[in-house]
Amino acid sequence: VRFLVLHGPNLNLLGSREPDVYGTTTLAEIDEMLANAAAPHEIVSFQSNHEGELIDKLQLSGPSVNGVVLNPGGFTHTSVALRDAVQAAPVPVVEVHLSNIYAREAFRQHSLVSGVCAGVVSGFGAQSYLLGLQAVIALAEAS
Amino acid sequence: VRFLVLHGPNLNLLGSREPDVYGTTTLAEIDEMLANAAAPHEIVSFQSNHEGELIDKLQLSGPSVNGVVLNPGGFTHTSVALRDAVQAAPVPVVEVHLSNIYAREAFRQHSLVSGVCAGVVSGFGAQSYLLGLQAVIALAEAS
Amino acid sequence: VRFLVLHGPNLNLLGSREPDVYGTTTLAEIDEMLANAAAPHEIVSFQSNHEGELIDKLQLSGPSVNGVVLNPGGFTHTSVALRDAVQAAPVPVVEVHLSNIYAREAFRQHSLVSGVCAGVVSGFGAQSYLLGLQAVIALAEAS
Amino acid sequence: VRFLVLHGPNLNLLGSREPDVYGTTTLAEIDEMLANAAAPHEIVSFQSNHEGELIDKLQLSGPSVNGVVLNPGGFTHTSVALRDAVQAAPVPVVEVHLSNIYAREAFRQHSLVSGVCAGVVSGFGAQSYLLGLQAVIALAEAS
Amino acid sequence: VRFLVLHGPNLNLLGSREPDVYGTTTLAEIDEMLANAAAPHEIVSFQSNHEGELIDKLQLSGPSVNGVVLNPGGFTHTSVALRDAVQAAPVPVVEVHLSNIYAREAFRQHSLVSGVCAGVVSGFGAQSYLLGLQAVIALAEAS
Amino acid sequence: VRFLVLHGPNLNLLGSREPDVYGTTTLAEIDEMLANAAAPHEIVSFQSNHEGELIDKLQLSGPSVNGVVLNPGGFTHTSVALRDAVQAAPVPVVEVHLSNIYAREAFRQHSLVSGVCAGVVSGFGAQSYLLGLQAVIALAEAS
Amino acid sequence: VRFLVLHGPNLNLLGSREPDVYGTTTLAEIDEMLANAAAPHEIVSFQSNHEGELIDKLQLSGPSVNGVVLNPGGFTHTSVALRDAVQAAPVPVVEVHLSNIYAREAFRQHSLVSGVCAGVVSGFGAQSYLLGLQAVIALAEAS
Amino acid sequence: VRFLVLHGPNLNLLGSREPDVYGTTTLAEIDEMLANAAAPHEIVSFQSNHEGELIDKLQLSGPSVNGVVLNPGGFTHTSVALRDAVQAAPVPVVEVHLSNIYAREAFRQHSLVSGVCAGVVSGFGAQSYLLGLQAVIALAEAS
Amino acid sequence: VRFLVLHGPNLNLLGSREPDVYGTTTLAEIDEMLANAAAPHEIVSFQSNHEGELIDKLQLSGPSVNGVVLNPGGFTHTSVALRDAVQAAPVPVVEVHLSNIYAREAFRQHSLVSGVCAGVVSGFGAQSYLLGLQAVIALAEAS
Amino acid sequence: VRFLVLHGPNLNLLGSREPDVYGTTTLAEIDEMLANAAAPHEIVSFQSNHEGELIDKLQLSGPSVNGVVLNPGGFTHTSVALRDAVQAAPVPVVEVHLSNIYAREAFRQHSLVSGVCAGVVSGFGAQSYLLGLQAVIALAEAS
Amino acid sequence: VRFLVLHGPNLNLLGSREPDVYGTTTLAEIDEMLANAAAPHEIVSFQSNHEGELIDKLQLSGPSVNGVVLNPGGFTHTSVALRDAVQAAPVPVVEVHLSNIYAREAFRQHSLVSGVCAGVVSGFGAQSYLLGLQAVIALAEAS
Amino acid sequence: VRFLVLHGPNLNLLGSREPDVYGTTTLAEIDEMLANAAAPHEIVSFQSNHEGELIDKLQLSGPSVNGVVLNPGGFTHTSVALRDAVQAAPVPVVEVHLSNIYAREAFRQHSLVSGVCAGVVSGFGAQSYLLGLQAVIALAEAS
Repeated sequence: VRFLVLHGPNLNLLGSREPDVYGTTTLAEIDEMLANAAAPHEIVSFQSNHEGELIDKLQLSGPSVNGVVLNPGGFTHTSVALRDAVQAAPVPVVEVHLSNIYAREAFRQHSLVSGVCAGVVSGFGAQSYLLGLQAVIALAEAS
Repeated sequence: VRFLVLHGPNLNLLGSREPDVYGTTTLAEIDEMLANAAAPHEIVSFQSNHEGELIDKLQLSGPSVNGVVLNPGGFTHTSVALRDAVQAAPVPVVEVHLSNIYAREAFRQHSLVSGVCAGVVSGFGAQSYLLGLQAVIALAEAS
Repeated sequence: VRFLVLHGPNLNLLGSREPDVYGTTTLAEIDEMLANAAAPHEIVSFQSNHEGELIDKLQLSGPSVNGVVLNPGGFTHTSVALRDAVQAAPVPVVEVHLSNIYAREAFRQHSLVSGVCAGVVSGFGAQSYLLGLQAVIALAEAS
Repeated sequence: VRFLVLHGPNLNLLGSREPDVYGTTTLAEIDEMLANAAAPHEIVSFQSNHEGELIDKLQLSGPSVNGVVLNPGGFTHTSVALRDAVQAAPVPVVEVHLSNIYAREAFRQHSLVSGVCAGVVSGFGAQSYLLGLQAVIALAEAS
Repeated sequence: VRFLVLHGPNLNLLGSREPDVYGTTTLAEIDEMLANAAAPHEIVSFQSNHEGELIDKLQLSGPSVNGVVLNPGGFTHTSVALRDAVQAAPVPVVEVHLSNIYAREAFRQHSLVSGVCAGVVSGFGAQSYLLGLQAVIALAEAS
Repeated sequence: VRFLVLHGPNLNLLGSREPDVYGTTTLAEIDEMLANAAAPHEIVSFQSNHEGELIDKLQLSGPSVNGVVLNPGGFTHTSVALRDAVQAAPVPVVEVHLSNIYAREAFRQHSLVSGVCAGVVSGFGAQSYLLGLQAVIALAEAS
Repeated sequence: VRFLVLHGPNLNLLGSREPDVYGTTTLAEIDEMLANAAAPHEIVSFQSNHEGELIDKLQLSGPSVNGVVLNPGGFTHTSVALRDAVQAAPVPVVEVHLSNIYAREAFRQHSLVSGVCAGVVSGFGAQSYLLGLQAVIALAEAS
Repeated sequence: VRFLVLHGPNLNLLGSREPDVYGTTTLAEIDEMLANAAAPHEIVSFQSNHEGELIDKLQLSGPSVNGVVLNPGGFTHTSVALRDAVQAAPVPVVEVHLSNIYAREAFRQHSLVSGVCAGVVSGFGAQSYLLGLQAVIALAEAS
Repeated sequence: VRFLVLHGPNLNLLGSREPDVYGTTTLAEIDEMLANAAAPHEIVSFQSNHEGELIDKLQLSGPSVNGVVLNPGGFTHTSVALRDAVQAAPVPVVEVHLSNIYAREAFRQHSLVSGVCAGVVSGFGAQSYLLGLQAVIALAEAS
Repeated sequence: VRFLVLHGPNLNLLGSREPDVYGTTTLAEIDEMLANAAAPHEIVSFQSNHEGELIDKLQLSGPSVNGVVLNPGGFTHTSVALRDAVQAAPVPVVEVHLSNIYAREAFRQHSLVSGVCAGVVSGFGAQSYLLGLQAVIALAEAS
Repeated sequence: VRFLVLHGPNLNLLGSREPDVYGTTTLAEIDEMLANAAAPHEIVSFQSNHEGELIDKLQLSGPSVNGVVLNPGGFTHTSVALRDAVQAAPVPVVEVHLSNIYAREAFRQHSLVSGVCAGVVSGFGAQSYLLGLQAVIALAEAS
Repeated sequence: VRFLVLHGPNLNLLGSREPDVYGTTTLAEIDEMLANAAAPHEIVSFQSNHEGELIDKLQLSGPSVNGVVLNPGGFTHTSVALRDAVQAAPVPVVEVHLSNIYAREAFRQHSLVSGVCAGVVSGFGAQSYLLGLQAVIALAEAS
């Protein structure tokens, strides 16, 4: 059983970018935490600043993985194409955010993607990923 | 270490009310799952259809508990008073929802409460509570 | 066969409060009119200024009554929690208003509750209740 | 004493058009039910898909009838001209709808006409007409 | 001559809750200041987190008091029921706020209650109550 | 030289309908005033409650008249089709209103028709027609 | 097999009205083009400036025709009644526009009718009708 | 009998500023036309780019003039203070515009002033002033 | 210690302008009341219909006065420039209104100035000034 | 003569993704249908989930093709950059959609691209492409 | 060759007013910097808190200057009259702002003036003026 | 010292695309102008139609360049991801636009990016880049 973790734009900067908002943990450290937490399941991680690459990966998720943890970053609020890719995914997709997006700028409080995800976890820093992973594992096991 | 779990209006109906939306698990079963999951920490649960009673309980949370898991139910979208009580709470408050509120009616997609909670978990049925409990325990331990 | 009549906030003032808008009939007189009109069915009336008490009563409606006539008063426009309680009710709920709410202030012209009631009667003073009672009796007999 | 019943656009299709929304009763059957219920008062019924014809009829209502039951159909949401004709009518006009318009598409939830009617009955199928007839008879008797 | 002072939700926390916004004076101290300032008039104070209890008290204001100083707290922005109770009150009601609500979050800048109060005092901390008390005494004397 | 005067819906009621808003002059009296004022030019008047008939008349305006005075009544605010007919008219069209529409209900303050008329006269009772007639005569003479 | 072509308000002016927007082809020429293109199927054409007449025709479409090509003209943006008639039609209805309505004034970019048509063709001048005819023939054959 | 003509900001540029929108007639020529047309009544004209000066003049209108023709220019859309001055004026005020403001930019289509004027004339170039003068003379004579 | 009282546009009309809204007290009487109430402090009063003059005065407030009572009148709702001048003022500014602006037209219910004032007093007629004066004296003494 | 067919994001999933909305025809089958229908003209097809790649292709359209059939998919509603590329294209671009986008979620009913396309075809499944191809061929031949 | 530099309301406070937003450079220093930078061209500077004076100056710009650098201050967001004066100016007008207005309060992010200026420079403190001066010199030389 | 110049989507078309809006200067010519103007500083230029590639480049800006001149093109109005990359950049970013975006379509008048840039230059054609370069050099020297 394998799970895909998709990190959206600017998440490769994690650890250095606005640490008061996003924390000091790096993306590599998060991926390692997820790999440990997922065992014996396998984790495949991918980060991109390109909306198209995230969609490409999501489309491939069906045959190869059992669920997806998706942090869509800035695309959360602007991408119908990503939403469509989530909706088309044959496996459950869980949306996660490091920061509490509902406590930030107005334009970050509306999500185009949440409505087609299985659920959302937002605001717990790196732990958002861990909770999201638990959720998607449970969903994969239940289906 | 003790945690308060606050269930908002109509959650006492859980198990019988719109099971396709809210599932068949009862509130008592959720409280039992939470008590088990929290051990050795203690769980205090409270449900009310009265906004004022939820605020009363939240105000008492400081001295007696180390964190709160709050499912504000329908008050999520309409109560500034509840928001103010969350904001005044001296311990972390985590908002949880059984259903994915972002996939439902327009009036359920705006929350007056989320912006002052530590974070939000939405859409995983009874598991939302379990994930929210984990989050609030981690926050309590970190503070 | 028994029907619940729920009167929302400030309706206990009926007869003295703004008689040009709400008429001079008192709530006790309306309850008596309803009891007479319902015969041989039974009427149980309840008024509260507390949203939570109205929700509590609605939740109890299932086992004990065959339908509800609900005048949500000011909660009509602000309560998602009451809406959820109506939606969860196992018996038909008919919404009534003394005044024609569509002819009043802008904030009174949007109802959070109407969409989950069986139907709405608005604008006929005390007669709104009588018409609503007829409607709910017919619905109860048809189901 | 005589009452006018005005049926707006597409109501001539009643019984065949979207029966799950509008029921299977035909317009002729409704008119017959109204005639029976109104006795000894007289009922004059008129249906038109033409906004102008409904306005013409409303304008004539004064000298010849004592009240109007109006189902404005799709014109409910779009016709200021019909609103003006209702407002100019020297007799009470009661608005009725077969379906609960507040439970339907957003554009059906705003009425240009309701604010100048005596009151509104919505959501009880053919019974909406019967309740509206009772209301207008009471209003005519009271004036 | 007697005046009612109604404190809305979370005002019992005064002195400890967000002192940079609401100051360090406690509610008991404010009540004492008001009692001193009102002499020889009498002051009756009441605080509640329950919307229904505030409405109950307002309804009783008529026979027993000559005016009301009301700090509706978070209900300011969300309660039509409280507005209706103010509108029905037979004595003048003056709205007060500790903080300047027009300098805060967008959702605090619209009041459902102000339009039916005699007037509003906002932004002067505990002094808002004293100014509001003066205003309501003057109104009571003028009527 | 001939001018068309088009009166929209409900204007046939003039003199009896809401005289405090629309005055006591009848439509026949206005038509006579216009005929006198227009001499030696000819006036052709037409009233209809049917949007389609007003459009039909406007379409015929080209060959037979040199300008149009149009009081679109309630269609002012709701008819794109009438707007299109005005825009297609080969002669100048002047919009007139008896009442000052900018001082009335919100839905009367937006006009779909004004933007394609030569100009607008609003608020002077029967004199609005006389001023509009002068304007269209001047426009016809200038072209 | 027979198809109805319905032309809405002002389309009888085609060829002379704003030729830069609507082209120089007349309505008769379009009807002839459609008749030729439809062969061996039969075409019945009808134009009206009256919303009611278009609804009347649509209601008759069921027994006598196999599909409808509808250019609702200005009613596109304002008529719920026409929408209801399309929704009630037992045969497929295809909406066509000569001009690209999405490139015009803001009020032309929202259609009340499109949501209940089978599909929409907009912007190709007279060819919009031909493409719409092909579409409705295909739909009729497929059903 | 004397009338005040108030020209708002930038109207001193008339004749040279955007002649395709505002025409080539100068303000002096318009004032002369008005003086001629008003005879035997007297005309007092005043232009200013200063909102405060227009308000000062309006306040003085009572004792010295019998009516006002006001072209508020750009202040039409932005000045509550000017609106208040018009509302306070003891004589009728008629609003005029050279261009048809309803055919221009969106921000020019809402007027803060029109609602408290006797009426509005818009779109007839210099003739708007002449028609407005006639209107105000008639109003002064009628009062 | 000296305080500036700034009266905005049209307040010089006080006593004669719409006495049912603004009362019969004249501005001179209010200024005298304020001078008496302020003793032994000094009051400097200034009224203008010119936004620029009010800004000029506010800018001078720093060196010469210890606080400002400001009734911005119609500029309340439209002037960012006045807001900026208030924000730049080195002494506390208290906003006052004679009428309860929250009970009036929609465009009067939003204030551009309130957010940068120390606080707001609205609705108590001439007494609003007296309460505002007390507030600013207290603020000046506290700073 | 050659035509470019551009398929936007997620269209590569055609046939398997939500077949009730998008049909069971695959993209390869659509491309083959288009190649057959276009003969003797040539068709070049391209699909991408990357907005940038679609823009790159559109920019190259000028020298090499005579027209474009564009299904922008989810980018329809969110991409100003794609709109700019369409506007800059030296050949006609026709927008097509498989589903009737005007009958779907609110966010799909506004198109940023349609306003600069020659025209739009929406709602006919694979046939939308065929009709769009006909339209662009006709436009290319006419230019 | 001569250029006019217009400073709007409150800019005379520069150097002392909110130095963290607007810097510590005084207006006199900015004028001197501009005079130096413009050489051999001449600079005429003018500051006013009066909208009317800025309009007066702009109207005089034509004969006497070759271009204008305008910092409209708070009038940026509220003045149609100033916009009209800019639009009527026969020489290019360049808008400048010290602060980045797009990073500030919502009401500062919409400009009524920018759309008729040649261009805008915002956010570079005193350097905004220098860049704006360069731009207007280049525009003057190019015309 | 080195500066990055980022050109967004469709800017590679410069010189040929809509020359009346964007001018006839090519991107290569602009880059050469910038290189000359920047000497002795170095300029690195990059254009892409891919949002992801612009974000990639911005992320690399820190170690290698001292500031960025960014023309986000169509992404200005739609990309939160690009905004986040600008906000995360450790060097100042200056936004430039060839055309005056505030004078164009409504959807171009809101920028998601401007709020996190140091400042904005818009409307001066190729000179916008030169002014932006000066600004960013000054900012780099000041930091």
